[in-house]
Amino acid sequence: MSKRKGGFTLPGESGYEELTLKLAEKWGADVIRDSDGTQLSEDIIHAGYGIYSTLCVIREHNEWAGKNKDKLQQTFLCTSPVVAATGEELTISLMDDFFEEQFAVNDCCEAMKYWQVYDRTVNEPVSSGDWTYNRETGSVTVQRAIPWHKYTVSFLAYRIWEEISMYNHTTNHWDKEHLMQIDPRYPETREYLLKWMKEWCEAHPDTTVVRFTSLFYNFVWIWGSHEECRHLFTDWGSYDFTVSERALDEFAAEYGYSMTAEDFINQGKRHVTHMPGNARKLDWMKFINDFVISFGKQLIDIVHEYGKKAYVFYDDSWVGIEPYNGRFEEFGFDGLIKCVFSGYEARLCAGVKVPVHELRLHPYLFPVGLGGAPTFMEGGNPTAEAKRYWNQIRRALLRCPVDRIGLGGYLHLTEGFPDFCNYIEQVTDEFHMIQDFHKEGKPYCIKTRVAVLHYWGALRSWTLSGHFHESWQHDLIHINEALAGLPVEVSFLSFEDVKNGALKDVDVVINAGYAGSAWSGGDAWKDEKLVEVLTEWVYQGGVFLGVNEPSAVTGYDTYFRMAHVLGIDEDTGERICHGKWSFTTADTEGLVPEGVRLAVKQNRYLTDGKAQVLLEEEGQPVLTVHDFGKGKGIYLSSFQLSSANTRLLYQLIRYAGGEEVTGMYMTDNFFTECAYYPKSSKLVVINNSECAQKTRINTEAGVKELELEPYQTVFVNL
Amino acid sequence: MSKRKGGFTLPGESGYEELTLKLAEKWGADVIRDSDGTQLSEDIIHAGYGIYSTLCVIREHNEWAGKNKDKLQQTFLCTSPVVAATGEELTISLMDDFFEEQFAVNDCCEAMKYWQVYDRTVNEPVSSGDWTYNRETGSVTVQRAIPWHKYTVSFLAYRIWEEISMYNHTTNHWDKEHLMQIDPRYPETREYLLKWMKEWCEAHPDTTVVRFTSLFYNFVWIWGSHEECRHLFTDWGSYDFTVSERALDEFAAEYGYSMTAEDFINQGKRHVTHMPGNARKLDWMKFINDFVISFGKQLIDIVHEYGKKAYVFYDDSWVGIEPYNGRFEEFGFDGLIKCVFSGYEARLCAGVKVPVHELRLHPYLFPVGLGGAPTFMEGGNPTAEAKRYWNQIRRALLRCPVDRIGLGGYLHLTEGFPDFCNYIEQVTDEFHMIQDFHKEGKPYCIKTRVAVLHYWGALRSWTLSGHFHESWQHDLIHINEALAGLPVEVSFLSFEDVKNGALKDVDVVINAGYAGSAWSGGDAWKDEKLVEVLTEWVYQGGVFLGVNEPSAVTGYDTYFRMAHVLGIDEDTGERICHGKWSFTTADTEGLVPEGVRLAVKQNRYLTDGKAQVLLEEEGQPVLTVHDFGKGKGIYLSSFQLSSANTRLLYQLIRYAGGEEVTGMYMTDNFFTECAYYPKSSKLVVINNSECAQKTRINTEAGVKELELEPYQTVFVNL
Repeated sequence: MSKRKGGFTLPGESGYEELTLKLAEKWGADVIRDSDGTQLSEDIIHAGYGIYSTLCVIREHNEWAGKNKDKLQQTFLCTSPVVAATGEELTISLMDDFFEEQFAVNDCCEAMKYWQVYDRTVNEPVSSGDWTYNRETGSVTVQRAIPWHKYTVSFLAYRIWEEISMYNHTTNHWDKEHLMQIDPRYPETREYLLKWMKEWCEAHPDTTVVRFTSLFYNFVWIWGSHEECRHLFTDWGSYDFTVSERALDEFAAEYGYSMTAEDFINQGKRHVTHMPGNARKLDWMKFINDFVISFGKQLIDIVHEYGKKAYVFYDDSWVGIEPYNGRFEEFGFDGLIKCVFSGYEARLCAGVKVPVHELRLHPYLFPVGLGGAPTFMEGGNPTAEAKRYWNQIRRALLRCPVDRIGLGGYLHLTEGFPDFCNYIEQVTDEFHMIQDFHKEGKPYCIKTRVAVLHYWGALRSWTLSGHFHESWQHDLIHINEALAGLPVEVSFLSFEDVKNGALKDVDVVINAGYAGSAWSGGDAWKDEKLVEVLTEWVYQGGVFLGVNEPSAVTGYDTYFRMAHVLGIDEDTGERICHGKWSFTTADTEGLVPEGVRLAVKQNRYLTDGKAQVLLEEEGQPVLTVHDFGKGKGIYLSSFQLSSANTRLLYQLIRYAGGEEVTGMYMTDNFFTECAYYPKSSKLVVINNSECAQKTRINTEAGVKELELEPYQTVFVNL
Repeated sequence: MSKRKGGFTLPGESGYEELTLKLAEKWGADVIRDSDGTQLSEDIIHAGYGIYSTLCVIREHNEWAGKNKDKLQQTFLCTSPVVAATGEELTISLMDDFFEEQFAVNDCCEAMKYWQVYDRTVNEPVSSGDWTYNRETGSVTVQRAIPWHKYTVSFLAYRIWEEISMYNHTTNHWDKEHLMQIDPRYPETREYLLKWMKEWCEAHPDTTVVRFTSLFYNFVWIWGSHEECRHLFTDWGSYDFTVSERALDEFAAEYGYSMTAEDFINQGKRHVTHMPGNARKLDWMKFINDFVISFGKQLIDIVHEYGKKAYVFYDDSWVGIEPYNGRFEEFGFDGLIKCVFSGYEARLCAGVKVPVHELRLHPYLFPVGLGGAPTFMEGGNPTAEAKRYWNQIRRALLRCPVDRIGLGGYLHLTEGFPDFCNYIEQVTDEFHMIQDFHKEGKPYCIKTRVAVLHYWGALRSWTLSGHFHESWQHDLIHINEALAGLPVEVSFLSFEDVKNGALKDVDVVINAGYAGSAWSGGDAWKDEKLVEVLTEWVYQGGVFLGVNEPSAVTGYDTYFRMAHVLGIDEDTGERICHGKWSFTTADTEGLVPEGVRLAVKQNRYLTDGKAQVLLEEEGQPVLTVHDFGKGKGIYLSSFQLSSANTRLLYQLIRYAGGEEVTGMYMTDNFFTECAYYPKSSKLVVINNSECAQKTRINTEAGVKELELEPYQTVFVNL
């Protein structure tokens, strides 16, 4: 059987033409791409493959950037607080804390009107007449500072080194020119970029797909001056890198009010994506999104004019693109490429409204991987890595298909790793088979429908902010990852959605996070309308599944606003003199698999003694069920990803929806999972573990018994 | 050498006259007392000893109480919240949650005007026209309840079973008449009690000391209707049991505003002593204190008229007595007796301005002790218990003397325990020797002066609320207990004291507790004046020693308001995307003894990277020192009592005060401690451990080397 071709993107490498074409054949590639730092040779370009060309819009223009340093991108920075002492002049040096290769103070008049000096002791801005800036020393002096108060200066700074380039430089000890990033907010920049885009298209007639390394604005990555604290702030979902005096002025003209430095700095905490936003932040995001769409579309239109497709790589300079805010289609992108470590990222990609969905698999063809561990070099085991990653992705692809997969990096590095090349061939085969089943019809899902409820709602479908290893501290990313491969319909709702009637299509609502976070909800829970709607919905039969500190907010009789539904609450110290209900653990009736482990949280207490405690740790309830009207509240103290916990979540969802805890098309061994495609009568069974597993599955065609090798995928005709 | 007599109170027991007199001789007793449930026979009364008679003012009047049930003591109770469903009438049964033998609803008109129905979903009271009370069913019906909101009813209830009596009954399965407690707030009650007091004095001519089992109002102890949650609320320091419609009316007349049920109920959380109070609570406490002094003094005057002394046992019905609010002397008490388990309780007793200070030692002569463990019965070891307790008390008495010690309970129980009788004899000897040294002059103290800073200040000197085993969750009780035996001058300051200049006499301020608690301070830290004063004081050389969540409050750039001094702060989640300073642990230069163990707290981060980390656990800093001006901030993640940790605290205090970490009159083995009395040239060395210890002490008379038996006290002439 000749290798099926299509749906695979291969990173080509000049100087390795033979290898490139050999692996393109082996892996069934239909497209060859370049990578950051690689070029494709003419032999490859004309070998009959589609050609992706990687393009980063805002860097690689250093000549123009050098002549237009007032049009580099910016950010607000805020100094560390300095305490004013009696009888001493208070002088604050602006750049002490910051990496001088990344930032330069923007002290032009137009920018300085956005600077703010803050008295952080009383949290009030200092009148602009009460401080002066010394351009020579780069410092601000506060007149009439109140002794023993602490002060900060928030100021605009140019970013003089594009962050991804900076990271690659410092990580790999490069000694190249620092790339700068230009800001299309300025008409001159836009004029320059439109011309450049046309020239680029003309110079690359063989490129079939322009793969934008996102568009204009990077996620936030602020580096410090000290080796011991180099990364001052990193947030994949934040908009801090979109500001400039010009953008701020235009915002004020359009929205009728001015954003201030403090709107971004927020007492030095900034507005982390993991925390709830506010109306001003949402306005700013909309303002930036409008701009990114409007100018992004002009570039995409040019690409289209030249008969090429425009794909976007959803990472790096992604800010303002927002695939889930309902406006993504306005760009006119032909495809979205997502670099994936996890199943939830595959679901994120698969769910975007765009013609082509493509996954960039891991490991990348680099000598080292995450955290500097060896991959394609001595000591590395790229095949094992590939299996582990595919294991995460595969279960998500069983639920929802994508159109393409591919790799990135330096192809020649695979030469010493034939196992890896064979395994990728196997992956492409599995990928095609799964894709074919999906084409015939959707996989079997249980009836119970789940909604994940948090501040951002659908805007942050599946992801929180960045990759799993960047957000592992949050229960919800573990839950999203578990859900990504379950036969359950999942939606993502905001609190506004709930108030506007979205619960009519939902059976189980999950609210998971620590108090005050975007994922728990914070102040949103002060709105009694939200509490009313959810309470009524549970009373009529819905199930509210809370994890960690669900619905937590201060100011009320209970810390968890849904405590009356959950039957459990957290004592923040005010109830330390209150007796707590003693309890015994109830029979779990098969609901809780052996091996489930939920990290204990202290100070949880039963409110009315009526919650059934299904699991306890250290005398604290960690899993409870509480009846409320026709519905229930289910509480988990925490959720960490594991096969046992994933199965627990699935069984809780089934139980919550009134379905049997076990049933059809469900393995009896939680290290294995399966998907059934009724239209094609195909059952796919996967082993998620690195050990061989036996499993039994009840199907309409009887009970199927299987033995699976580690990480194996088995396809069964029913 | 004949046994020295004096300063010891023996519990006599009729039927055991010989034993009573024999042990009185052995232990050098000068006073014989009765106990709850015992009587003294004529033989004992006339044997030449002083006679204490135990008297509880407000119980043991059941005949009168039965005729005056409207003058029983009361409390506010609040039902559990009930959710209103659409189309259903909302009816809340008042007594469902409460122990029906303890409470009876007070539904007279005057009381009902203080009842409140609350919508807990919006935290607002329901208009009194919108609910009705059904006396037959004991329930409240809310008209026009908002569907899906939850409601509570706060109401006044008579307490129909005096709580200490109730506890003894239920613990010992007594089958006696339930004692009721009458409220002296009513003129009729006062008239009755004054008459009764006179009659009592006349009927007890041999009593030399009337030992009041406190006065009128018990600490709060609310029992529930369910075995699984019997103790709904227990707070030794709370004033909830002082209310009545009459008291509330009188308060309104005197203070010009009315206290409401909600002022006590506080969303069902009540006002726990471990949390900060507020102005209304302080007003109420003052109002009650005025009353308790004014009527208490009338009773004491009667006792004095009959030539007897009046001592108060500071426990049980102590509420309103307040030995540390500056007004205690107004009572005219001749002595204060404190039941002690811990050193801090001995210091509390010793520091009260009253002629005689007496300690009631443990174990009590009861068959079982705390938690029901055997003491004076098979399986018990009362000598070992006595040693452990004396070990706690002794180090406190080395710092500050009391006048008397004694025991309580049933003397005949000692009969099978000659070891115990011998050990108590030894204790009385040690007690007298220590007392004698104090009489010649104060023990040596280091120069560094410590102040413990919290909401209550001097009012809650040494104690938090009750005994150690009732407040062990709080770091501060561990610190107070450690301080109780250190050669350091200790004061207790409130935040108001600090703002009013109290720091001029202090070198080290300790602020220790979890966020929001009275011990950390909660909203007090929103006052910038407090922050200013402390900041300046540290800058000029003071040391702020923070433990757990010192100065924590939300709303500012740092969670710890003193983070600029401490160099460490807590991330409540808003800084999860912020980089944290890496650190290495610094050389502790002898500051941290081997064996120190501080429980780790998560999410602490160094603010400016300048704090020296002296200890870390799980990668988190648990002990740091940060320079600020001429002073320092020292941070401990937590503090649990142990010999090593006590020594750490002492050494940190020395270090903070600029003294050498080790020095004169300090043992080199932290299981031992010593006290030096310069006036009498006496050195007392104690072994706090249950193992033999060797220790060396540098003195003006050279280095002393000693070997001590377990728990031994050694007296050395220098």
